[in-house]
Amino acid sequence: MQPMPTTPVFRYEQLVAWTDRLIDRGLWPPGTRMPSVRALSSQHKVSVSTVLQAYRTLETRGRIEARPRSARVAIGHTVLALLEHTANPALVPLGCTVPDASLLPTVPLDRALTRAARLHGVRANTYGSAQGEVALRQEIARRAIRTGQALSADEVVITSGCTEAITLALSAVTRPGDIIAVESPTYFGQLHTLEVLGLKALELPTDPVRGIDVDALDKRLQTDSIAACLLSSSFNNPMGGTMRDADKRRLLALLARHRLPLIEDDVYGDIHFGRDRPTPFMALDGADNTIYCSSFSKSLAPGYRIGWIVAGRHTQRVMERRLAYSLCSPILPQLALADFLSAGHYERHLRSLRRTLEHQLLQMTQAVEASFPPATRVSRPQGGFALWVELPRGFDSHALFDQALDAGVCFVPGDVFSASRQFRHCLRLSAASRWTPAMAAGVQKLGRLATQMLV
Amino acid sequence: MQPMPTTPVFRYEQLVAWTDRLIDRGLWPPGTRMPSVRALSSQHKVSVSTVLQAYRTLETRGRIEARPRSARVAIGHTVLALLEHTANPALVPLGCTVPDASLLPTVPLDRALTRAARLHGVRANTYGSAQGEVALRQEIARRAIRTGQALSADEVVITSGCTEAITLALSAVTRPGDIIAVESPTYFGQLHTLEVLGLKALELPTDPVRGIDVDALDKRLQTDSIAACLLSSSFNNPMGGTMRDADKRRLLALLARHRLPLIEDDVYGDIHFGRDRPTPFMALDGADNTIYCSSFSKSLAPGYRIGWIVAGRHTQRVMERRLAYSLCSPILPQLALADFLSAGHYERHLRSLRRTLEHQLLQMTQAVEASFPPATRVSRPQGGFALWVELPRGFDSHALFDQALDAGVCFVPGDVFSASRQFRHCLRLSAASRWTPAMAAGVQKLGRLATQMLV
Repeated sequence: MQPMPTTPVFRYEQLVAWTDRLIDRGLWPPGTRMPSVRALSSQHKVSVSTVLQAYRTLETRGRIEARPRSARVAIGHTVLALLEHTANPALVPLGCTVPDASLLPTVPLDRALTRAARLHGVRANTYGSAQGEVALRQEIARRAIRTGQALSADEVVITSGCTEAITLALSAVTRPGDIIAVESPTYFGQLHTLEVLGLKALELPTDPVRGIDVDALDKRLQTDSIAACLLSSSFNNPMGGTMRDADKRRLLALLARHRLPLIEDDVYGDIHFGRDRPTPFMALDGADNTIYCSSFSKSLAPGYRIGWIVAGRHTQRVMERRLAYSLCSPILPQLALADFLSAGHYERHLRSLRRTLEHQLLQMTQAVEASFPPATRVSRPQGGFALWVELPRGFDSHALFDQALDAGVCFVPGDVFSASRQFRHCLRLSAASRWTPAMAAGVQKLGRLATQMLV
Repeated sequence: MQPMPTTPVFRYEQLVAWTDRLIDRGLWPPGTRMPSVRALSSQHKVSVSTVLQAYRTLETRGRIEARPRSARVAIGHTVLALLEHTANPALVPLGCTVPDASLLPTVPLDRALTRAARLHGVRANTYGSAQGEVALRQEIARRAIRTGQALSADEVVITSGCTEAITLALSAVTRPGDIIAVESPTYFGQLHTLEVLGLKALELPTDPVRGIDVDALDKRLQTDSIAACLLSSSFNNPMGGTMRDADKRRLLALLARHRLPLIEDDVYGDIHFGRDRPTPFMALDGADNTIYCSSFSKSLAPGYRIGWIVAGRHTQRVMERRLAYSLCSPILPQLALADFLSAGHYERHLRSLRRTLEHQLLQMTQAVEASFPPATRVSRPQGGFALWVELPRGFDSHALFDQALDAGVCFVPGDVFSASRQFRHCLRLSAASRWTPAMAAGVQKLGRLATQMLV
């Protein structure tokens, strides 16, 4: 602690001079986080408004700059309420992000379940392997070859959906209080998981098409203490963007230099409209510090709750956590999925599902363009089934949400995709449900309500 | 920090005099935790052995007493290895704590699963309610009436077995670093969960028949900061004891005074050999600070991974965590269980399962008594299927474990049931598997090996 200089007259000027001196002497190099207003106020025994005035002065003079801070998330209540609405069959389901059951091969899948019960029932009525059934792990490893991953069944751990996979990954490589770099906007479920684990989200600038800005992350890493990155490998939720392979490689090299783990969420990877599937980070990675998470929930069996994780050198810690969180998964659904996959049904199904979802997204995009206010911008995802709709700044998607519920339509307001509650002027629509006149009318209603709100 | 007195000659005497003074002046009231040996050594710049000598002197003079400390658990590796052994079909399964599949009504249960798939398949291939299927919650609430709980389906949350229920409960009411009071010995899976959540275990003196000592807990609560109690409601694993209702009530009153949550594990409650089922704490509790956890894994469907939690005023926090850990459970197995329960099959099955398990435990007890060293003591559980076998102090159950594996027999060594690794001279045997000549021979082998080790 330095003694206060005496020449300046006002207290805030004293604080400014004190800060100036610290910066001049190199004690606060560029990028250093300034003390909090509260801390400085109590340290110097001055009021909060004095500190604020000093900081404003320093900012005006270009000596300090404001930067977005990593934020503790507080989203649990909202997520619970949202899930209730998205599951409400009375509402037009523009909020729901699982494909309509009628778009999924549920009947042959359940037939495989019945067969598994008949063939393996008694053997299966016990605790399964915590790692998961080997038959299913083998099928997952076999499919991974398509995306360039040389994976063995031994490296795969079955989870209760991608949700548990990501929770296991985060809890294996972080401690409460750690900062996790995420896309912005990013899936609210992941923000919720950060909250539950006591982690903080650092939102990275994210391009709607090309994903996060690797250079921006590079800069942040020079000054900020980040414990891990949690990123989408493909068609991020909600914007639908995918990083290019070259950027993915640059990112991996950057993280390797900083010895930072990357947790990748590849849950939408199989729903690509173009010829090629996006490459998972793990397939590009030599560093063994990438944790791959995915599931069958978005493309095959949301009702089965089966995902998986490939955690490399973190596998032991992941397995230990898996034991505490859920011990193991039910055996029969795993055997049914393995059976379905090995018969080749999944690839056939995917080909038709991709065409259907691409078509539905197109129809929804056209409906948005026809009914929303002219200044509206809509994402152009090359996969998945989410549409990101951006209205002029100042638009209140929460007010729209309330009105939409009254009108029988559900969607997700934009700010729940941000730990710092940006994007309140945006909304996410889902084209996962079959495109029907009711869906079209739902989008139209939303557009009309939004237009009225902007008048 | 006080200056060191100069009269005593030896350094340890200086330390003793310093401590005496602090105690005399009331600065360290009874029950205060003494500084660690390491801390005192660095604080006073004396060697560790000097501090140890000082503490020994103080202890001899009756100025301080040694007490068991709450311990950070480190059991993950052991649990993973153990589970692998207990699941190994090549070994005589004296370690495994799920009933033999042939003792369970797997065929009619799977038939219910097949029926559920046929009736509800397409509707069920989506995300289920995070709280769980209402049909199953209703059946659970209906059954709770038998144990005196006036429960509504709205209060029940379905989980991935009792494992997830307890993890949710702990994570809802504690923070990392908190101290949780547990039975000693207690189920190693719970110690593992404490470890994963960064919690510490405080082991309470536990009677093999009557469970924990409420007076001992009362005393500890006067000096120690305990965040929650995690206790068995019935036939604790591994000793098989159950607290009497009067003790349960006294405990609840004590915890209510201290506003401490009680997490109860009732997973063995349905397997009672006597006429009456033990009463869950929740049925005795007026305070709304008891969290009830159970599952169908020990008595009906270990392969289905279905448990539940009733969390009272902690329900919102439990639900938020449930979303992050697993989102929801597969729908069809829940519907199948609901169907099976509502048809009354479960009660019929339980009646025969209880008789079988009681008989198996008796046979195992006789086999232990016939083949183990004469000084061996065996528990007399009134329910469940675990036997706790105590050999003379100094006996090494780990050495026996290694020899037993070589001889093709699996069991669980006693010290994994204790965070402070007590009970190394004990073992847990499980009578969950059908009593066969191979099981009898397995017990006999163990007894012979143990006898040789004691010679």
